[in-house]
Amino acid sequence: MSTFGHLFRVTTFGESHCASVGAIIDGCPPGLSLSADDIQVQMNRRRPGQSDLTTPRNEKDRVLLQSGLELGVTLGTPIALMVKNEDQRPHDYSETDLYPRPSHADHTYLEKYGVKASSGGGRSSARETVGRVAAGAIAEKYLKAAYGIEIIAFVSSVGKIHLPSTIPSPSTDDDDDVGDALSEDFRKLLSTVTREQVDQHPTRCPHPETAELMTKRIVRAKEALDSIGGIVTCVIRNVPSGLGEPCFDKFEATLAHAMLSIPATKAFEIGSGFRGTEVPGSKHNDAFVRREDGKLGTKTNWSGGVQGGITNGEDIYFRVGFKSPATISQAQSTAQYDGTPGSLAARGRHDPLFEAMASLVVMDQLLIQNSRKTAASLLPPITTLPPTMVMPTRN
Amino acid sequence: MSTFGHLFRVTTFGESHCASVGAIIDGCPPGLSLSADDIQVQMNRRRPGQSDLTTPRNEKDRVLLQSGLELGVTLGTPIALMVKNEDQRPHDYSETDLYPRPSHADHTYLEKYGVKASSGGGRSSARETVGRVAAGAIAEKYLKAAYGIEIIAFVSSVGKIHLPSTIPSPSTDDDDDVGDALSEDFRKLLSTVTREQVDQHPTRCPHPETAELMTKRIVRAKEALDSIGGIVTCVIRNVPSGLGEPCFDKFEATLAHAMLSIPATKAFEIGSGFRGTEVPGSKHNDAFVRREDGKLGTKTNWSGGVQGGITNGEDIYFRVGFKSPATISQAQSTAQYDGTPGSLAARGRHDPLFEAMASLVVMDQLLIQNSRKTAASLLPPITTLPPTMVMPTRN
Amino acid sequence: MSTFGHLFRVTTFGESHCASVGAIIDGCPPGLSLSADDIQVQMNRRRPGQSDLTTPRNEKDRVLLQSGLELGVTLGTPIALMVKNEDQRPHDYSETDLYPRPSHADHTYLEKYGVKASSGGGRSSARETVGRVAAGAIAEKYLKAAYGIEIIAFVSSVGKIHLPSTIPSPSTDDDDDVGDALSEDFRKLLSTVTREQVDQHPTRCPHPETAELMTKRIVRAKEALDSIGGIVTCVIRNVPSGLGEPCFDKFEATLAHAMLSIPATKAFEIGSGFRGTEVPGSKHNDAFVRREDGKLGTKTNWSGGVQGGITNGEDIYFRVGFKSPATISQAQSTAQYDGTPGSLAARGRHDPLFEAMASLVVMDQLLIQNSRKTAASLLPPITTLPPTMVMPTRN
Amino acid sequence: MSTFGHLFRVTTFGESHCASVGAIIDGCPPGLSLSADDIQVQMNRRRPGQSDLTTPRNEKDRVLLQSGLELGVTLGTPIALMVKNEDQRPHDYSETDLYPRPSHADHTYLEKYGVKASSGGGRSSARETVGRVAAGAIAEKYLKAAYGIEIIAFVSSVGKIHLPSTIPSPSTDDDDDVGDALSEDFRKLLSTVTREQVDQHPTRCPHPETAELMTKRIVRAKEALDSIGGIVTCVIRNVPSGLGEPCFDKFEATLAHAMLSIPATKAFEIGSGFRGTEVPGSKHNDAFVRREDGKLGTKTNWSGGVQGGITNGEDIYFRVGFKSPATISQAQSTAQYDGTPGSLAARGRHDPLFEAMASLVVMDQLLIQNSRKTAASLLPPITTLPPTMVMPTRN
Repeated sequence: MSTFGHLFRVTTFGESHCASVGAIIDGCPPGLSLSADDIQVQMNRRRPGQSDLTTPRNEKDRVLLQSGLELGVTLGTPIALMVKNEDQRPHDYSETDLYPRPSHADHTYLEKYGVKASSGGGRSSARETVGRVAAGAIAEKYLKAAYGIEIIAFVSSVGKIHLPSTIPSPSTDDDDDVGDALSEDFRKLLSTVTREQVDQHPTRCPHPETAELMTKRIVRAKEALDSIGGIVTCVIRNVPSGLGEPCFDKFEATLAHAMLSIPATKAFEIGSGFRGTEVPGSKHNDAFVRREDGKLGTKTNWSGGVQGGITNGEDIYFRVGFKSPATISQAQSTAQYDGTPGSLAARGRHDPLFEAMASLVVMDQLLIQNSRKTAASLLPPITTLPPTMVMPTRN
Repeated sequence: MSTFGHLFRVTTFGESHCASVGAIIDGCPPGLSLSADDIQVQMNRRRPGQSDLTTPRNEKDRVLLQSGLELGVTLGTPIALMVKNEDQRPHDYSETDLYPRPSHADHTYLEKYGVKASSGGGRSSARETVGRVAAGAIAEKYLKAAYGIEIIAFVSSVGKIHLPSTIPSPSTDDDDDVGDALSEDFRKLLSTVTREQVDQHPTRCPHPETAELMTKRIVRAKEALDSIGGIVTCVIRNVPSGLGEPCFDKFEATLAHAMLSIPATKAFEIGSGFRGTEVPGSKHNDAFVRREDGKLGTKTNWSGGVQGGITNGEDIYFRVGFKSPATISQAQSTAQYDGTPGSLAARGRHDPLFEAMASLVVMDQLLIQNSRKTAASLLPPITTLPPTMVMPTRN
Repeated sequence: MSTFGHLFRVTTFGESHCASVGAIIDGCPPGLSLSADDIQVQMNRRRPGQSDLTTPRNEKDRVLLQSGLELGVTLGTPIALMVKNEDQRPHDYSETDLYPRPSHADHTYLEKYGVKASSGGGRSSARETVGRVAAGAIAEKYLKAAYGIEIIAFVSSVGKIHLPSTIPSPSTDDDDDVGDALSEDFRKLLSTVTREQVDQHPTRCPHPETAELMTKRIVRAKEALDSIGGIVTCVIRNVPSGLGEPCFDKFEATLAHAMLSIPATKAFEIGSGFRGTEVPGSKHNDAFVRREDGKLGTKTNWSGGVQGGITNGEDIYFRVGFKSPATISQAQSTAQYDGTPGSLAARGRHDPLFEAMASLVVMDQLLIQNSRKTAASLLPPITTLPPTMVMPTRN
Repeated sequence: MSTFGHLFRVTTFGESHCASVGAIIDGCPPGLSLSADDIQVQMNRRRPGQSDLTTPRNEKDRVLLQSGLELGVTLGTPIALMVKNEDQRPHDYSETDLYPRPSHADHTYLEKYGVKASSGGGRSSARETVGRVAAGAIAEKYLKAAYGIEIIAFVSSVGKIHLPSTIPSPSTDDDDDVGDALSEDFRKLLSTVTREQVDQHPTRCPHPETAELMTKRIVRAKEALDSIGGIVTCVIRNVPSGLGEPCFDKFEATLAHAMLSIPATKAFEIGSGFRGTEVPGSKHNDAFVRREDGKLGTKTNWSGGVQGGITNGEDIYFRVGFKSPATISQAQSTAQYDGTPGSLAARGRHDPLFEAMASLVVMDQLLIQNSRKTAASLLPPITTLPPTMVMPTRN
């Protein structure tokens, strides 16, 4: 349904041509400094055609906070926010609309609900995601303030153009050929990439040469009145170890749920992903090393920061594939996802949405684990278990 | 946490060396004919080393039904079931256990809970999945009886050995090269494959020649005291259109959640998946055709049976990648996932688990959609909307 | 938290002096004819001082629908609605606010959240209930349209002034003295009372003589710069049998939850309630009778329409006690619950809120039971159980 | 459904004549010292006819722990437990069972599920509550260890025989007559009563003279082949302030939900309850006083330890009314609730169940609030709010 999360719960509303879209965020920690501007930053990054993000704030998609704060501080009560729809005109019913558009959601919405919005897919529109991005910005503000957590998503492929260090190598039968998936370059990119770098090119690819090739690919699709898909890679840094709720709400399970709830996504992988299925265990296992802070880290990170469904303190990284937009030139009049066919920006603007959904997952899992840790900390030391069964810091 | 589903809710319990493992299934429709044998079939398929499934029922992993039925009929009340652990010996504490095993869950369990089971990863053990398989068998019984739904999972790759029709073709820059991912052969395989075919080879690959190559690959890993991962492909047939709860509980989002909750999984894709990101929209869109039953179907099925997060009545198919088992020969004494290193059966036995989780997703989504359809059917006809906004069968 | 319900989920937001208050209603059946006016009726009944409900619609507390409908028909997607707060001025901080007000929520809000709204209790204000009443009106519209369900709440006591037929008789030791609690008069009142009757007197008591006495009692409190509490009785008619989800979400348990979530309530009883504890089983048991429609009914209704946590098709009735408002004359400047001390209307306006919460409970339980019934109806006839274990209409 | 709680989740199973009854407890804090004996204590108190609790442990209703612990310490994973049913014989179908028993659940179970257990009401049987009592004992163990929380339930009325200090005084029109509901005696009783005192008399009434009268009343019912109801009063001591989740999961709302989910209950009131509706605000308001520990307390406690849905640190007390058992002599062969008609013990044994449900509520609310407090504590000091809006200990 339209609610995500257990303790940090986001409920969204709105479709393409209704009065407004938005969300209620329930369970935000009280005492967080928060303003509409904090949210607007991600809202602006989300908008298509934002080639210059340093321009004065565009008044479109302006976030209106309704509740849950006073004098710029969260009260712990539900935060409601909304963004008015500029185009509230219902569909022109004189248009012939008898044939559902291929690979759009209008057919399945009709199958499901028996009625459908005049504009077509209703909630499958990109307008629905406005509330998520806003909610994610609030979670992110907290995560940054309390834990220094950073979440960066970028475009790592467009069609067959891949960011070099993330290209899986050809499938040869040579077991030593483990490809570039976990190359040093890639790991370095994950640990250093910034939103500023991502925003420097309209494709949202932080590798300039690849970004140029991506641009050409998109232009080619546009000229062919066609569209093309791609892959977003996302890294989450500084997440504490211990997040994830086995056995059903493992960290990566919840993350996959969040990502596949984004319109047009078809695939998710964490760490080595599908590529890792080809790598023998002897190479794939991440050896432990003692980190400078005294905690255990891993030398490699094929696991993507998660073991047994629980974060281990390493960078969490994952990839999400989204299909070529269903809307191509022949159907422009009913263009979904706000985009012109083959539009470059149409894809780039999705990055904030991936970041938003990732932040919702981390936030909720963090609150649940916080509760457990606090509860356990109030118990007396454990004296009846052998030392190998108890974490030294527990007692 | 340990509960999955909203109306058909499964809660599991148990780890490697406790008294028993099992589950409570809440929300099973009343009046379903059900026996322990119905469940035992999948339990037996699940067990490693089951090369001959026609042998008399193995008394190991015997399902004990505790409640929720009488005279072989479900009452609608919670069904509890358990399977006794044969090996309830706690770990030998004299063993040195000071170093966590690479890419196992014992480290993260300790980080999360502050204590851990002597056997290591506790709930990350394959024993945990016993309850899921049993619960899934109940869901499946209902889905088959009420809708004729069929769910078949099979192994489509081991290391770099792929079932031919599911190998993504090399990434060339030729847009016309869309590979075999959605070949006729593949679609035919999905629409016809049976569990009997899958069970005929211990690798659980329904393509004999590929199965032989897989066997060799596994033997090679075994001889190298190593392990290797693989991919499971799963198809769900005869699912009604209309399942899936946008915007957060889209069908594929819930499915991805379910699959990534399975131990050792790292990747999920539905329909064309990652491969589909390289295919232009003009090729990727699934054109509508009128089916024999009068309903709309699609000519191709790149979507994998889901549009806008809602099933469209076509076959649902998806792939799940699982990493090479972390347990390799050097660490055999603490072997997790019950498996000897490089074990063939160790992977094959996972198929029932994928089928089980898929059935839980379909079952829960079906119950939710049933509720909506029934509720809507009690309302008077809709007379104020233009015909294109209302499903003809609604009024 | 701020969400109520499982399939018909209401999430509310807003406090006294924020921009707006409102709610998102998720899971409303698609195809329901609905307008803002449908909701406004209950919003107007809710407002204090509404002595004449036939006046033109007051523009205060005007409901603004944001999403989920088109051309006056629900789409099945989330319905968001809001009501602007007229008084958005934050509290005047120059006022001394160092001492928490007795029996208000400002102290506990501070204990819980560490911060509090300047206006005091934040979400404990009556403004919070605006969203509930609006959401309840939508549920009610459906329940009336699909099932003819009627929900009527009225004031049955103010201080020590009780509506005669609902006064428990004195506690004598005579077991034959079972009082008037379940008198014929009372049962007749429950089966016939209308909202029009309730609205005819500002006290919202449908018994004119008692209403007059109540008015006097309230005036007396007002003159004493004091306040007084009361009891609301509510009846729900035409609810199908079979609603309620044992063992934890029994119908009356969910109803009690809903009612005790209303500000200032302290007590709940269904059917014979506390009074019934004094009545011997031989008198308290409700004998079955065959009703005109062929279904089983009960001759008496001490049970209040619920047996074993499941509705039995009889009228459901319950009573909710609310304490004397904490705001009395000494603290008028910070008056909570919008009311002047001792205000008559202050209490009467709560009736729509009780009706709203009751409708949310019925709606959600109905959707869950609908799902079960539909699922069970798709199974083959049950042939292996003795007839006494199967409902005749099941097969 | 059959799950209660959000972070401390209890899922129960089992009916009268199935193999076993029990529960899964998910979310128990790891590191808690726990044995079967801890649970057995309450299980023994629960059993009917336990007049001498110092006898060697009765082997009946023996708790079998299945998972979630090792060496007597909880692991943080789900704890499954079961109690075997001694009487697993299905009902004798030759008995005439054509007429549903008045005020039993067999009729409504049939209406709801279409099938029913041969024994009648299935889950409405007292056997269902075994799992709750066991789960509650675990919560209680934690609450005692971590917070010193004490939960004591006792019988305060049987029929018209009331424990003196809890008798509401006659309803006169004199506003000064506020009765004994909140008398000094009563408050002292709440603050001092122990389980040992409660267990000293088979009626579970801690006031010997009243206990004798209750015994006589029960004997009289028994001799008349009849039954009689009663009221349980429960106090929870040492609960921290700040628990309860407005606006829907207020502390008392969740408590009422829990209590009304207990079989045969019909009424709930917290603090002054229904009686409080008759008391003017000037008398009903609880004035603040500074307690010895420096925190704010209240001089009186009409509120029952909850303000605005949030605990305030005072004793929480509430009353629950349960109806006369429906099973009277005429229907003894199908006796429900295990009890002989009019049995004294039949009622007394419910006390542990009330304590159990109360402990589940406190535990779950505590874990949720813990999470919030921990999350808020990681934020920087709040410098932009006036001091009256921030709790001094927050910064």
